[in-house]
Amino acid sequence: MSRKIIRGGLVITATEELRADVLVDGERVAAVAAPEIAEQWVSTADAVLDADGHYVIPGGVDVHTHMQMPFGGTHSSDTFETGTRAAAWGGTTTIVDFAIQPVGGSPREGLDAWHAKADGRCAIDYAFHMILSDVGDEALKEMDTLVAEGITSFKLFMAYPGVFYSDDGQILRAMQQAADNGALVMMHAENGIAIDVLVRQALAAGRTDPRHHAQVRHPLLEAEATHRAIQLSRVAGAPLYVVHVSATEAVAEIARARDGGLSVFGETCPQYLFLTADELARPGFEGAKYVCSTPLRPADHQQNLWRALRTDDLSVVSTDHCPFCFTDQKELGRGDFSRIPNGIPGVENRIDLLHQAVVEGRISRRRWVELACTTPARMFGLHPRKGTIAPGSDADIVIYDPRAEHVLSAETHYMNVDYNAYEGRRVTGAVRTVLSRGDVIVDAGTYQGRAGHGAFLRRDTCQYLV
Amino acid sequence: MSRKIIRGGLVITATEELRADVLVDGERVAAVAAPEIAEQWVSTADAVLDADGHYVIPGGVDVHTHMQMPFGGTHSSDTFETGTRAAAWGGTTTIVDFAIQPVGGSPREGLDAWHAKADGRCAIDYAFHMILSDVGDEALKEMDTLVAEGITSFKLFMAYPGVFYSDDGQILRAMQQAADNGALVMMHAENGIAIDVLVRQALAAGRTDPRHHAQVRHPLLEAEATHRAIQLSRVAGAPLYVVHVSATEAVAEIARARDGGLSVFGETCPQYLFLTADELARPGFEGAKYVCSTPLRPADHQQNLWRALRTDDLSVVSTDHCPFCFTDQKELGRGDFSRIPNGIPGVENRIDLLHQAVVEGRISRRRWVELACTTPARMFGLHPRKGTIAPGSDADIVIYDPRAEHVLSAETHYMNVDYNAYEGRRVTGAVRTVLSRGDVIVDAGTYQGRAGHGAFLRRDTCQYLV
Amino acid sequence: MSRKIIRGGLVITATEELRADVLVDGERVAAVAAPEIAEQWVSTADAVLDADGHYVIPGGVDVHTHMQMPFGGTHSSDTFETGTRAAAWGGTTTIVDFAIQPVGGSPREGLDAWHAKADGRCAIDYAFHMILSDVGDEALKEMDTLVAEGITSFKLFMAYPGVFYSDDGQILRAMQQAADNGALVMMHAENGIAIDVLVRQALAAGRTDPRHHAQVRHPLLEAEATHRAIQLSRVAGAPLYVVHVSATEAVAEIARARDGGLSVFGETCPQYLFLTADELARPGFEGAKYVCSTPLRPADHQQNLWRALRTDDLSVVSTDHCPFCFTDQKELGRGDFSRIPNGIPGVENRIDLLHQAVVEGRISRRRWVELACTTPARMFGLHPRKGTIAPGSDADIVIYDPRAEHVLSAETHYMNVDYNAYEGRRVTGAVRTVLSRGDVIVDAGTYQGRAGHGAFLRRDTCQYLV
Amino acid sequence: MSRKIIRGGLVITATEELRADVLVDGERVAAVAAPEIAEQWVSTADAVLDADGHYVIPGGVDVHTHMQMPFGGTHSSDTFETGTRAAAWGGTTTIVDFAIQPVGGSPREGLDAWHAKADGRCAIDYAFHMILSDVGDEALKEMDTLVAEGITSFKLFMAYPGVFYSDDGQILRAMQQAADNGALVMMHAENGIAIDVLVRQALAAGRTDPRHHAQVRHPLLEAEATHRAIQLSRVAGAPLYVVHVSATEAVAEIARARDGGLSVFGETCPQYLFLTADELARPGFEGAKYVCSTPLRPADHQQNLWRALRTDDLSVVSTDHCPFCFTDQKELGRGDFSRIPNGIPGVENRIDLLHQAVVEGRISRRRWVELACTTPARMFGLHPRKGTIAPGSDADIVIYDPRAEHVLSAETHYMNVDYNAYEGRRVTGAVRTVLSRGDVIVDAGTYQGRAGHGAFLRRDTCQYLV
Repeated sequence: MSRKIIRGGLVITATEELRADVLVDGERVAAVAAPEIAEQWVSTADAVLDADGHYVIPGGVDVHTHMQMPFGGTHSSDTFETGTRAAAWGGTTTIVDFAIQPVGGSPREGLDAWHAKADGRCAIDYAFHMILSDVGDEALKEMDTLVAEGITSFKLFMAYPGVFYSDDGQILRAMQQAADNGALVMMHAENGIAIDVLVRQALAAGRTDPRHHAQVRHPLLEAEATHRAIQLSRVAGAPLYVVHVSATEAVAEIARARDGGLSVFGETCPQYLFLTADELARPGFEGAKYVCSTPLRPADHQQNLWRALRTDDLSVVSTDHCPFCFTDQKELGRGDFSRIPNGIPGVENRIDLLHQAVVEGRISRRRWVELACTTPARMFGLHPRKGTIAPGSDADIVIYDPRAEHVLSAETHYMNVDYNAYEGRRVTGAVRTVLSRGDVIVDAGTYQGRAGHGAFLRRDTCQYLV
Repeated sequence: MSRKIIRGGLVITATEELRADVLVDGERVAAVAAPEIAEQWVSTADAVLDADGHYVIPGGVDVHTHMQMPFGGTHSSDTFETGTRAAAWGGTTTIVDFAIQPVGGSPREGLDAWHAKADGRCAIDYAFHMILSDVGDEALKEMDTLVAEGITSFKLFMAYPGVFYSDDGQILRAMQQAADNGALVMMHAENGIAIDVLVRQALAAGRTDPRHHAQVRHPLLEAEATHRAIQLSRVAGAPLYVVHVSATEAVAEIARARDGGLSVFGETCPQYLFLTADELARPGFEGAKYVCSTPLRPADHQQNLWRALRTDDLSVVSTDHCPFCFTDQKELGRGDFSRIPNGIPGVENRIDLLHQAVVEGRISRRRWVELACTTPARMFGLHPRKGTIAPGSDADIVIYDPRAEHVLSAETHYMNVDYNAYEGRRVTGAVRTVLSRGDVIVDAGTYQGRAGHGAFLRRDTCQYLV
Repeated sequence: MSRKIIRGGLVITATEELRADVLVDGERVAAVAAPEIAEQWVSTADAVLDADGHYVIPGGVDVHTHMQMPFGGTHSSDTFETGTRAAAWGGTTTIVDFAIQPVGGSPREGLDAWHAKADGRCAIDYAFHMILSDVGDEALKEMDTLVAEGITSFKLFMAYPGVFYSDDGQILRAMQQAADNGALVMMHAENGIAIDVLVRQALAAGRTDPRHHAQVRHPLLEAEATHRAIQLSRVAGAPLYVVHVSATEAVAEIARARDGGLSVFGETCPQYLFLTADELARPGFEGAKYVCSTPLRPADHQQNLWRALRTDDLSVVSTDHCPFCFTDQKELGRGDFSRIPNGIPGVENRIDLLHQAVVEGRISRRRWVELACTTPARMFGLHPRKGTIAPGSDADIVIYDPRAEHVLSAETHYMNVDYNAYEGRRVTGAVRTVLSRGDVIVDAGTYQGRAGHGAFLRRDTCQYLV
Repeated sequence: MSRKIIRGGLVITATEELRADVLVDGERVAAVAAPEIAEQWVSTADAVLDADGHYVIPGGVDVHTHMQMPFGGTHSSDTFETGTRAAAWGGTTTIVDFAIQPVGGSPREGLDAWHAKADGRCAIDYAFHMILSDVGDEALKEMDTLVAEGITSFKLFMAYPGVFYSDDGQILRAMQQAADNGALVMMHAENGIAIDVLVRQALAAGRTDPRHHAQVRHPLLEAEATHRAIQLSRVAGAPLYVVHVSATEAVAEIARARDGGLSVFGETCPQYLFLTADELARPGFEGAKYVCSTPLRPADHQQNLWRALRTDDLSVVSTDHCPFCFTDQKELGRGDFSRIPNGIPGVENRIDLLHQAVVEGRISRRRWVELACTTPARMFGLHPRKGTIAPGSDADIVIYDPRAEHVLSAETHYMNVDYNAYEGRRVTGAVRTVLSRGDVIVDAGTYQGRAGHGAFLRRDTCQYLV
């Protein structure tokens, strides 16, 4: 077994900032130790990684990605191979992607299909949530089996009628099942039925540009669905995790639920924190690059998201990484914004963008780690294997240079997509070295990983339910 | 320097639960390591502490105690020597006590007096908050000096007119000063002016029994003062820490403030979580044992406190340990509840009572540690020295037996007071071994500490202000 | 033209209580005058009605009745003839009933059918709301025409999938149309999709008794739908009137909306104010008498409804009169509560029950008139013809004896239904004389009206929209 | 007795808009009648007042004026003679002024003094509230006597320490007394203790201009005091009326209280609805003209006040008329804004300004009458004598021309003050004729009243307490 020591860094976890060294033994962290103690191991170590002047943080856990996902006749442009490699470059060492139950088929079929896509191709460890797009007696029964196999979270859609949409009865039943089997229901909370009316009206009126995407997906229709999901979860007695929260009014519903002591959790994404609906009005159809759902919001929503991240009304920052190339993919929606594939790339940029929030004084370093690594891992049953640096944990570790500056750009990024949503943005802080289960897979600008290194993770259930 | 290894336990911190061993080198934690790694140290260790089947947790941090405090012509019955020893028995290894500015005098005088009381007498490490009871130009200037000396928090009273009371102008000025010097203002939030009217009316009407103590100290008068303190802190631009929150309506004000993104924090105490106002109606003047302010509340308030502890609207559980013997002290108030010395003993029982909440499923083990150790330490600038188990931290460690049952009782407790507020309550879980800066001071029912081991701690400022 | 004087009573309107006499000239009120002035008219009057010791109030306006309504294979048991006569007996001189668009048909068809049922048969004046049960392009266009014909309010159902149910897209479109044409959208706010799941589960589990009706129609599913309707109305920019509000949580949503300045109005009914869910558990299937939707709620909801009536978060009390005989009709649901025809009789009892609230000190006399007469008239565009006593208004007047006691009972009531929901309840206060457009139709226990006296009322739009 | 008929107008009350004629017999309204009925009286009438094309509304009731009030070494510049005459010109026929208990003296003394000032001098009817500035046992007892004499409301100040200020204990005691004797406590809700700190700091820093008046009187310090007054009133079980509400945050506290069913009422004034804090920054010390307390607020507060007026979270619009001439009076505060006499003239402009809100679509005509006439009368026990047009009511009537335009200006106003706060503002709508108890006192630009016509009104208690 290979032994490595990471020396001289500032080890940051969700609660600690330590001048300490980390001993890695094989795939696991073996010890976190004061430097004078670690000194003793140097002679027997296979490698000593110098972290002087650097942060030593847990590898990022991105619990919302869509690799190679079919959508509107095309596929998201990152495969599990390219996407997990990009994630690694960006300091993320675990993703939880979404397997999709086909309409008319079973969750199992979907899971098998996603296993087939991912197996042997991932640079980093991965797990699956299951999207239920056809809730019925059989699918509900299968939920129990899947939980036993480590698929412990199930996403439902209140948006996208005719595609992923579940009606309130299906949602209620899935929540009841989750209340019994311990699974966590994840919700895309937008009133898709009402939105579709507004879409048709916009198109009929010739409002076909990307910027109308944000107008028809009204903040109140996000808030409405959020409230509805919360009430249904109360009736079912089940916890709830709301994905990609973007609107002030939706945050308020989650805060209200939490004030009442409910197990309701919220997630947001860097695009809602760093971009605004103005991007959708870019000339030359470039706005299409910024079409995702929930949509980007006017600038005044951002401060409420940051506020909620501070007070834990929002607990997780994931990416909802779902890349479609501008050329040929986003362009499918020219003349009809509703045909633009929904999604924004970002799996590679999350850790850096959130570090930027540290630099700007919005969040503390520990909260950075908590939002990007620890809470996602605990929320989805991966802790303590993932999301922290502690003896026994997987040695998924990032050595991060807090002073390095770089510019986010499609020219330099590793995601398989022809644009970067943050193109040209200069950030302070950069990933230097990444370990995945003890192996150095990125170091000083070179990729040392390999497809297939990443293993499938069976997850426990949510760790926030007392 | 002595080396010790704590082997075989479940190390629990605010975010982790680890099967790991802890290496102590002198006064500090040197490493947390997987058992197979720790194995190597056994041969060179001075002591191996077996924690098999036990929890290994950070020593408790009780940020609200009143040792040897003058009140109504008497003193609280624990000296720094007896009180800190009792704390140690109960698994608490740090207290933050309150030095008191004398009316007409300076904070410095108060601090000197408290140093004199504590110096050389404490079993565990200790620090001081400063009670400002006479806010004026000089006292405000002195705040800055004291912050530089590690007295980084200042308590003000909206209750007790003529004793500790500050008016809203004094409070505002102290908060403004704190906004500048980084100190944290702590508030006893009860409308003492209104309460005193109700006290006089009750006494005039012959309602002199202890149970009227809770009736005159109306929950709305706690909520009112809490709201007022919050608004004053907003005007001043300062953070706020509300002590001993007991009423549902006061919790609601704190929740509302936090929903708005304010740096407002709440503390509660075991007495509010485990006892109710019914105790005040005990026959034979025994209710006097339960006279403290804020008062015990009707039972329905408890569920809101527990709810708030889960969602972090309340962030800290301290004891407000302020013991007065029933005989001769509490009895001063026979025939006039307003003359009963206010206070309840508890420094020894906090860790066990909160563990009981773990047993009953109210909070998780990690939240137990967070509420009792980590957050108090971070709130008052003692982290990472205190409140966690990590390389470089003080080796303040408790080996806790989660299955041992025992009964809380004045007959067996070590606090210097003739009754126990939880007399006869059977709890599951018990402190077995306590280390303070690396020294075993309690072990298996024997006290091995000494007066004067405990050192004064200069504190940093609050760590929750970004 | 016949001239009448009502002498010696206390004239009560929504804002006044006057010792005054009322001069009626033909169908209209000609004057309200001080007694010494009215004296002059006595000699020329055709009739002098002595109101000494009585209240003189506007005739009641019941804006929610269902006469002769098809439901689940049967019809509500009051025809327009029997129902309006019973209304008259109870001091109500105007009803607004619901014409129903047939599924697959047009609103116009429904309206024609309801005109045919009512024409020439009513004892008192009447108007129609329109139930939209099949919202599409044609129906939306027809809304405009109907508004011009005095059908200025349109009811939609979030409950009863497959019967009256509209989905959120249909609701949004109807609201948009109303925003343009000035109509008021009325909403049955219950999440029928989710409720139907709970119904099926209850039946499958053998929970078939009437009391399960209240359990499956969960208060949170009323609150949810109320919130959803509010948000959709905000998106559409339309006002909203929520019918038969029964749950505390739904009231809270309306209050929240109103605090935000929205034109959202709430109605409740006597059954929610005076009866509780306990009635549904009556032995011998008698609970079926109390099956209505929204359902009766546990007792603690009542105080919130009364509170909301005081502060105008609820603005109207109607009856939702929808009688089904216990024998043969309610009995259709033996063994399956979901087959019990939904509805409770009450058009005859509303004025007395609300007066009982005056007697008990819950509301003032003026608020009694406001809730039962004036606000309903203004809300639905009937004021000042209806809902007040003022020169030019229709002479729809009730002379009410505030001291007479009587017992509500099926044995004595005039509604065509074999039970009374308030059977055996003794109330203080009774209708003595009723005038409809100047004609005495009830007096001292004799009915003097006739089928066909009542005329159809074209309504203006809602008068609360600034 | 003189008989008059007002013919052809649109009679507007809080709930009605009628084409009707009004018969006045002596001091009272004798009848409201349809034109064809009124026709009969014409021959016997002493006067026929043509109201064709005009509104006929109740005379305004201004429940917040300060005539001839001592403040900071000077007196408000309107005497009861000049002030009530100006009120009459502006369509107000009743004022409720504030008698002031002298510090160290009794309420009775204050009342006697105010009677002496007003007796024989008023153009219109008047009543008194009592300001308690020295609450003690004697003053509390006297409250009961005063209530019996028609002084049924008592104002307390949380501002102005050393002048009118009551501490929370005094406030609580006064509220308890009011809970017993039926009086209504009125509150000036600003935290004067905290404000005085900010005042001293501002002056010490050389911020002496009028615009600092608004900065030191922070909106949160109004909200704080409002919340405190509400909580104290809950403890006492008494209703509460908050005067001159100006801040969004204070409105929110009142709305919250009302949502909870409390008898809490709010008043605002035209200056908060039509002026902003920008006025205070006028050059050349002109800002002093706009110094009043609570202060004018930034523009964004206005929309919340209008919202609250619509939903009845604010129920009354009074003027807080308290005029001080710019020359010699306001100028006392040159170089020290805290010495500027607090107050703004307005008793003459209220009806016109609120009509302007009707013109602009902010409120309906009925709400105009309700806010300016009916609710103030009911709130302070003057209804039905005042605040409405109904048989038996005092014939205090305004014939209002809704189309006349005029310009508000000190050059044309009748208030005894050398500036107009709305100088140059063009408004649509003007008072044409004013009747006070049957006498025409203003007509077509001529004043026909006389000092001493106005009588003292003994008031009943608040009519909103069921």
